[in-house]
Amino acid sequence: MLPLVDSVFYWSDLFGTAVFAFSGILVAGRLRMDGFGVIVLAAVTAIGGGTIRDLIIGAEQVFWVADTLYLWVILGTAMLGLYIVRLPRRLPWYMLPLADAFGLAVFTVIGADKALSHGTSGMVAVVMGVITGVAGGMIRDVLAREVPMVLQREIYATACILGGILYTGTLALGLPTLLATALGMLGTFILRVAAIRWHLSLPVFSLTR
Amino acid sequence: MLPLVDSVFYWSDLFGTAVFAFSGILVAGRLRMDGFGVIVLAAVTAIGGGTIRDLIIGAEQVFWVADTLYLWVILGTAMLGLYIVRLPRRLPWYMLPLADAFGLAVFTVIGADKALSHGTSGMVAVVMGVITGVAGGMIRDVLAREVPMVLQREIYATACILGGILYTGTLALGLPTLLATALGMLGTFILRVAAIRWHLSLPVFSLTR
Amino acid sequence: MLPLVDSVFYWSDLFGTAVFAFSGILVAGRLRMDGFGVIVLAAVTAIGGGTIRDLIIGAEQVFWVADTLYLWVILGTAMLGLYIVRLPRRLPWYMLPLADAFGLAVFTVIGADKALSHGTSGMVAVVMGVITGVAGGMIRDVLAREVPMVLQREIYATACILGGILYTGTLALGLPTLLATALGMLGTFILRVAAIRWHLSLPVFSLTR
Repeated sequence: MLPLVDSVFYWSDLFGTAVFAFSGILVAGRLRMDGFGVIVLAAVTAIGGGTIRDLIIGAEQVFWVADTLYLWVILGTAMLGLYIVRLPRRLPWYMLPLADAFGLAVFTVIGADKALSHGTSGMVAVVMGVITGVAGGMIRDVLAREVPMVLQREIYATACILGGILYTGTLALGLPTLLATALGMLGTFILRVAAIRWHLSLPVFSLTR
Repeated sequence: MLPLVDSVFYWSDLFGTAVFAFSGILVAGRLRMDGFGVIVLAAVTAIGGGTIRDLIIGAEQVFWVADTLYLWVILGTAMLGLYIVRLPRRLPWYMLPLADAFGLAVFTVIGADKALSHGTSGMVAVVMGVITGVAGGMIRDVLAREVPMVLQREIYATACILGGILYTGTLALGLPTLLATALGMLGTFILRVAAIRWHLSLPVFSLTR
Repeated sequence: MLPLVDSVFYWSDLFGTAVFAFSGILVAGRLRMDGFGVIVLAAVTAIGGGTIRDLIIGAEQVFWVADTLYLWVILGTAMLGLYIVRLPRRLPWYMLPLADAFGLAVFTVIGADKALSHGTSGMVAVVMGVITGVAGGMIRDVLAREVPMVLQREIYATACILGGILYTGTLALGLPTLLATALGMLGTFILRVAAIRWHLSLPVFSLTR
């Protein structure tokens, strides 16, 4: 990509990291965790998915080992978050879901992009986009002793799948990376926001009658 | 191994993948998961153990990243499974446990074999056979918020341990790979089927009175 | 380090492995697990953290794959533990917490040291010390279907953080490894023992009123 685009992407990634970390903090707050627990839930939510992705595709180095700024963003978010979270609500309710959908879009495209750059097939790239987007939240929910939200409710991972397919497919057609990135992110973001707005969800599969 | 044996082994592995994926689908059905949840539980059950094995022994590439067919088998099983599972029961009850025991036997020998080919000791190879056979099911149970079945009930992992020891031990005696494979698979399969048939289980260790 | 120090360190590490394995056995006993479950809980507690560390820093080989003695220590502890645990209490109550604090101190310094020797930043080294010290116990608690103890109660991980900072900081000042090791271990050990003795804990963060 162009240097400017790369740079915008990097900062978007850090922003997504902060948003995901914040969602870990909210779960920690419901569970009466101490300061260490807050940081752990923030960290696994924010970098858990990317870590699993980097291990599976065999990246030379896990991204946050190579670039410590991610850890500082999480630490900063955890400290700031402890205060923000108690403020009388000033932000409109839709700010957090919108920020989260944006983070999801960034993580999805980064995950698929990194997989492709390690020579994986398109299908594996889509899977890596999904893992980057949702695996951290799944570990957070397991640590909080909940069935991962993403397996049961709402269109969340499905938005990653759509975004990953759009990104990978656009590249496979030989179209420019910038277009693929835009389509991948927009696809993820719009489907996720639409799911929140109109309460879309996949049909539930149940074997109990 | 001989090419034919290799080929039989590869298809057995894909068959085991489908059977393990199906067991993930059954758990997803009990938990009212959506379509994505079904696929995730199917996937972690089928390839979770092999993924952990490949990461720990330092395989050049995780097996399903190198060969996307595993993912397609899981996807196909998940789609087909949603229908099969609702059919009026036509298959005799013992079909699924038998298929599962067969999958367990294949996974155990593949896990031990892959470890040895990466230069591990025999003991580590046995551990990798066990991880390949049971770790996926353990992650499935954790995501479903259950204490992993394999830690509490029945002879399941124990069958992997026996099969792994038979496979590794036979090779250590300098006997042919084909014989080691046969003994390893038969040991796992027979002990597992015997455990189901006669309700064998290990004594439970309890500290509460 | 000097050969003698290296050797003392290695045996301390094996001792810590046995103590951590024993704590896994105690949890298994509360959950009515069978013999295999006991060994799995012992193993994940003892080597789970170090395994995750080695994967993330990209060690050439996971430590217990390279040196099988760790697995034998766990197996021996599990077998011995099943008997010891039922003996009428002969040991004073504080023996196990003291041994555990010692194991925690060893694991913390080993984790930070191994990370630094793989070229990570000081912050990542501290994180790796914490992961080595507490991640195994977290997996144990998740398998036992409990919210990880370390996220909610007492100063445990905080002792690792202090020890890791002391170790990494001392080295960063150019002081000898032996001094850094002593400070790192003492810092972890003393804070942990003080936390037990005076029931110190971090303030809990709660969002429910």
